[in-house]
Amino acid sequence: MSVGRRAPKVDGLAKVTGAARFTDDLRLPGMLHGAFLRSPHAHARIKSIDVSPALALEGVHAVLTGADLPVNYGVIPVAMDEHALAVDKVRFIGDEVAAVAAVDRATALRAARAIQVEYEPLEPVLSIEDALDPQKPILHDGRRKASNVLRRVHQRYGDPDAGFARADVILEHTYTYPGSTHVPLETHVALAQATAEGKLTLWSSTQIPHYLHRALARVLQLRPQDIRVIKPEVGAGYGGKSDPFAHELCAAALSMRTGRPVKFILDREEVFYAHRGRHEVRMTLKMGVTRDGRITAADFKAWADGGAYASYGVVTAYYLGVFLPLPYVLDDWSFEAQRLYTNRPPCGPKRGHGAIQPRFALEIHLDRLAQAIGMDPAELRARNSVQPNTETSNGLRITSVALNTCIERVIEASGWRERRGRLGPNRGLGLAASAYMCGALHPIYANEMPQSAVQLCADRSGSVRVFAGTADIGQGSNHMLATVVSERLGAALSDVVVLEGDTALTPVDLGSYSSRVTFFAGNAARMAADRLREAVANAVAAGLSAKGDPVDPDDLDFSEGRVFPRAAPERGLTLADAFALAEAERGTLGFTGHYTPPKIGSRFRRQSVGPSPAYSFTAQVAEVEVDPDTGFVTVHRIWCAHDCGKALNPAVVEGQIEGSVYMGVGEALLEEQSYKGAMMRTPSILEYRIPTVHDTPEIIAIIVESEDPEGPFGAKEAGEGPQLPTVPAIANAIHDACGVWLDAAPFTPDKVLKAIERARRQAERGER
Amino acid sequence: MSVGRRAPKVDGLAKVTGAARFTDDLRLPGMLHGAFLRSPHAHARIKSIDVSPALALEGVHAVLTGADLPVNYGVIPVAMDEHALAVDKVRFIGDEVAAVAAVDRATALRAARAIQVEYEPLEPVLSIEDALDPQKPILHDGRRKASNVLRRVHQRYGDPDAGFARADVILEHTYTYPGSTHVPLETHVALAQATAEGKLTLWSSTQIPHYLHRALARVLQLRPQDIRVIKPEVGAGYGGKSDPFAHELCAAALSMRTGRPVKFILDREEVFYAHRGRHEVRMTLKMGVTRDGRITAADFKAWADGGAYASYGVVTAYYLGVFLPLPYVLDDWSFEAQRLYTNRPPCGPKRGHGAIQPRFALEIHLDRLAQAIGMDPAELRARNSVQPNTETSNGLRITSVALNTCIERVIEASGWRERRGRLGPNRGLGLAASAYMCGALHPIYANEMPQSAVQLCADRSGSVRVFAGTADIGQGSNHMLATVVSERLGAALSDVVVLEGDTALTPVDLGSYSSRVTFFAGNAARMAADRLREAVANAVAAGLSAKGDPVDPDDLDFSEGRVFPRAAPERGLTLADAFALAEAERGTLGFTGHYTPPKIGSRFRRQSVGPSPAYSFTAQVAEVEVDPDTGFVTVHRIWCAHDCGKALNPAVVEGQIEGSVYMGVGEALLEEQSYKGAMMRTPSILEYRIPTVHDTPEIIAIIVESEDPEGPFGAKEAGEGPQLPTVPAIANAIHDACGVWLDAAPFTPDKVLKAIERARRQAERGER
Repeated sequence: MSVGRRAPKVDGLAKVTGAARFTDDLRLPGMLHGAFLRSPHAHARIKSIDVSPALALEGVHAVLTGADLPVNYGVIPVAMDEHALAVDKVRFIGDEVAAVAAVDRATALRAARAIQVEYEPLEPVLSIEDALDPQKPILHDGRRKASNVLRRVHQRYGDPDAGFARADVILEHTYTYPGSTHVPLETHVALAQATAEGKLTLWSSTQIPHYLHRALARVLQLRPQDIRVIKPEVGAGYGGKSDPFAHELCAAALSMRTGRPVKFILDREEVFYAHRGRHEVRMTLKMGVTRDGRITAADFKAWADGGAYASYGVVTAYYLGVFLPLPYVLDDWSFEAQRLYTNRPPCGPKRGHGAIQPRFALEIHLDRLAQAIGMDPAELRARNSVQPNTETSNGLRITSVALNTCIERVIEASGWRERRGRLGPNRGLGLAASAYMCGALHPIYANEMPQSAVQLCADRSGSVRVFAGTADIGQGSNHMLATVVSERLGAALSDVVVLEGDTALTPVDLGSYSSRVTFFAGNAARMAADRLREAVANAVAAGLSAKGDPVDPDDLDFSEGRVFPRAAPERGLTLADAFALAEAERGTLGFTGHYTPPKIGSRFRRQSVGPSPAYSFTAQVAEVEVDPDTGFVTVHRIWCAHDCGKALNPAVVEGQIEGSVYMGVGEALLEEQSYKGAMMRTPSILEYRIPTVHDTPEIIAIIVESEDPEGPFGAKEAGEGPQLPTVPAIANAIHDACGVWLDAAPFTPDKVLKAIERARRQAERGER
Repeated sequence: MSVGRRAPKVDGLAKVTGAARFTDDLRLPGMLHGAFLRSPHAHARIKSIDVSPALALEGVHAVLTGADLPVNYGVIPVAMDEHALAVDKVRFIGDEVAAVAAVDRATALRAARAIQVEYEPLEPVLSIEDALDPQKPILHDGRRKASNVLRRVHQRYGDPDAGFARADVILEHTYTYPGSTHVPLETHVALAQATAEGKLTLWSSTQIPHYLHRALARVLQLRPQDIRVIKPEVGAGYGGKSDPFAHELCAAALSMRTGRPVKFILDREEVFYAHRGRHEVRMTLKMGVTRDGRITAADFKAWADGGAYASYGVVTAYYLGVFLPLPYVLDDWSFEAQRLYTNRPPCGPKRGHGAIQPRFALEIHLDRLAQAIGMDPAELRARNSVQPNTETSNGLRITSVALNTCIERVIEASGWRERRGRLGPNRGLGLAASAYMCGALHPIYANEMPQSAVQLCADRSGSVRVFAGTADIGQGSNHMLATVVSERLGAALSDVVVLEGDTALTPVDLGSYSSRVTFFAGNAARMAADRLREAVANAVAAGLSAKGDPVDPDDLDFSEGRVFPRAAPERGLTLADAFALAEAERGTLGFTGHYTPPKIGSRFRRQSVGPSPAYSFTAQVAEVEVDPDTGFVTVHRIWCAHDCGKALNPAVVEGQIEGSVYMGVGEALLEEQSYKGAMMRTPSILEYRIPTVHDTPEIIAIIVESEDPEGPFGAKEAGEGPQLPTVPAIANAIHDACGVWLDAAPFTPDKVLKAIERARRQAERGER
């Protein structure tokens, strides 16, 4: 039995021994190296480019500019505002202007610097205010409406006015969540090889081989069947490798131009420009509750600084509001979100995409409301929690829910009831909860085909090979698929070989984003494994029946590498013999499985129905200590209980919980992508600080299983949801410790100190 | 339409541009290089081996001897007499005694030479006579009967005595066919990588990934599912890469020992020892005909010098006799064949395995009989030719036959009737014909599973990926599979991607031998493509019917990348759209196909039924010129008409015909593996001469199509059969030119001169 076992990851040993091969480990004969010339201006018109000084350098094979790659693209078809290299305009400091292929990277960089560009600087748009100011320049011409608003989403459900009228307490506050970036250990790398036949192979550290495949076809004007995208091992993504990137397109274009393999590796500074990280979001939240702790209404407004290009921004705007009626029932409410263009590196999805920021506001707000009505914040949350098999006001279909168990478990584990408010001065406990999606119902381009698919083949050795279009980026999706197939067939995990991340070998899967892989591809794998199991069971039953008492296929068990009648295990066969029997009877044991999410209609018959087929739930308690003299916050401990449906492998789920909380701690205390004008202050990991092991609290991961009826073996997501409550839990703990509300992350010493000072002055004024 | 088109080979451009990657092109980090210590004795007992001087050398990582790999193996399970390294005894000069892995090949060779071995020389067995001599030492101990006869086959059909009694003319002669070897341009290369997980990957230039897989599991004592065999591009095999080899096993064992990748590349001299080439065969043939040209009876005896190990020898013995009643009806006959052990490099299959030698004897013999009864040899052959849909006396089921058309075509093309005997002095025409198998009915290990299988998947781009266990060794099997799938789906050839030669990716196929791939794997590919086509046709018919007049799936045509109603082509879809429609309807379009040859029973109810599901037929005319002063034979032209069933790609079939005839010309005029005692005379391609372009005659390839009812689109084999008649056709042409019969190949100047001399003396004696 594989499901529920703490088996080591199937690819763990390769990772720790260094045998795993990442894109930069690949070297091809005659390989050239690429480099970019990037814009020094935040906003400027390109008047002319002279590449001849670069081409004149020895060892330079080719130089491309925007004119060579004029086709626009973008990951979301409705907002294709990018070009591989700037066409006419540059829109942020770091925007790619020209690409060079040379014999080595030093030469390529020297050549890039030799290119002469004449710019006409334009006034930059550098803030949410700028973006909303109609007097400021427009970043992207030719849009339907001349504006720097990429997308405005405005939705209203029930009767917010009536809801607020029912409230006993109404609070309204403004919150600010900063931009931050992913900082994967492996930077972006791509290697392209174009062949004489007109075929192109691109190896890339990407989360989305299929979308990248489509972008390559579009921009390079190749037929999709002439392109192969291979994702080698990936040193993490966290959402930062979910877009097609300039270096991928330019590696390919330069290989086609030169006939040689071309590799691009971005250095750490360039990754800060490539970005696609967390949006800075300014929010106002107005919310009402009754004295007995019922949430009656909410009004939420959000403005997201999206940077220079759209990326997933139209989705971000939607996500900023759609999760609001989760995990708490909310019937009468409205939201308005705007995703804005500014002359900064483009933002996109980062772990907890679009949901982190409103969760920050809402969970602090709930604590404020609890305080106002004198209720335990845990009780307030539990009282409003969404129930299984219901539908939210905005049409989200809710299946399994174990939120209250999560709350109960972290409260018990942390000693909440006994310890909260009693930890002594400057120490506190804070709680927050959340829900997150298990994959998106809708693909980014309209089509009715499966969103995940698996093709497998049983081998006469007793092993099974599983071709999946998934992209394991270190999160363990290969292990999950192996677990599902292993479980259904009673095969050892090591006898299930998952082959993925190669568009030439596997059916399409949409990629590693929105916490979709276990749920979507896991279901596809289960379908394929079920079909194989049925074929083998029929053959074995027939074979056994021919030799003795009749055996019904349904009475066969598949376990520990054997197939046997439950009532007579001694009559069984090894899996290898069972496969051989079935293969002799019916031919090659190849099967497919797929997953297409259900078409979820809403009782409200609204167009916009819930984003996901299932939702995970999380509750966290943070224990912090605040130094009142320095403002320095130490997070001692975080208890995180996560409803992942069913933990296919508890060790991997715990790893995801720990990683999520770790990332939340970074965003709570340290991380912020800040600018001096248009210039990023911290484009290096010396300056942009992420938590080290010393900054990381003890993390107590608690798995709560709700067994989702539609998840593979009941599984839901665990890779993003657990990050959502971390920052507000820490904020609420700081309030518990020293009585200040922090409405803007990160909670740096200066901010904390200022808040303490302000509170002290207010208290003094109150005393006076 | 792909079938019948002269499309360039799908992998042609990669080959001619150098992009194709062969095993020796592969380099892995930390890779070591292997080398062998080989026996200097033909036959000796190993008294002791001291490897310490080798291990003491800097850069040496490991040394293995026979004691490290004690498990026997061999490609045919009933005759496993090999060890990766000699255990106790060496049996030919070149036998592998120890294997070294070192930082580079020079160090490995130096280390191998440093190993101290104490031998006790034994009397060697060096000829057919020696092998049959009961006083000589036995090479292999522990066999059921102490003997140097590996296998004796004796069969008798009908009533040979009565047959000879019916004959008007009976001739009996002795023939000798020499040993020869394959000389592929690429020597043997293997690269092994063992991982920390206990997995092993072996890249090797092999024709038989699956059998190699089995041998690795057996010898290394690994589970088969822990082994992956990959066949990169192969620089030809001709049968010489159809065995598991010591360098493959030792590369793997040394990688497991050292934890490093290990590569072995055999130098050209070593390939002569690895060998597995053509057996030297001595034959006596007695045959009778009536005055009106009916063959009445035959008695055939053959002794094959097999060298030191069995290889495919038990099959060789069988093949020496089984084809005798083809392509001419022969009801009353007997044969006896013995395959013998000698202290020479082991023989195995070479193009036309086991059939080349008896064909040589029989086709010269037929010309002698024709001369004796005063009949045109072409007429004699045509009069006796086997007919379609019959069964031979020994149970071979004959389906399609176009032998007489082949004879007619070469006679016409060569001007046989007008020119034979009228070319002037020392010029002549000779004719010969033959039949050959299209794959072996029986796998080498008993099992009921498919012998070829394909798994495919249609991609939404409109392309199809085909996973096949086949091993393209340059003969074009990938192209054949692509052609079959392309034809069924109306897809462009370049949109069918064949992925093969990798046991971790593909269903099992038994390999590239016995001219089986087009027939066996082609049928598997056709089955899979048919299933895909049906699924797509159903979806398209339903889709079109929903929008207009009803369409029956059977009325749809698949052609030129489109699917459309034959009666209303304008209602069609592109193949990509059709795939998307079907994928949306039923999920991932993955299908399998397989081929298991029919269980052919015989009307004689004999156990031993025919070796193959179908047979190809060939006729050739050679035009030669003999220099009576030097004995030098020039072959000016060869017309070869080959019944390949259906030419899936005429250009590839012609290439196979040309290659076969070329190889026959080499065996007719130049090639012979000869020995001075136990020492090979010519272990280099300076000394072992193969024809250059200057030695190669004009070859007129004539394709004759019989459309086999069971072959894929009617196809049969073309890769081996065309070689069979070349040597006897040249022998018969030499007789036509100067009146001498040459009963032993190759027809070197000294042999020809001696024959002319002898004939002159006989003529003088006759005159006197």
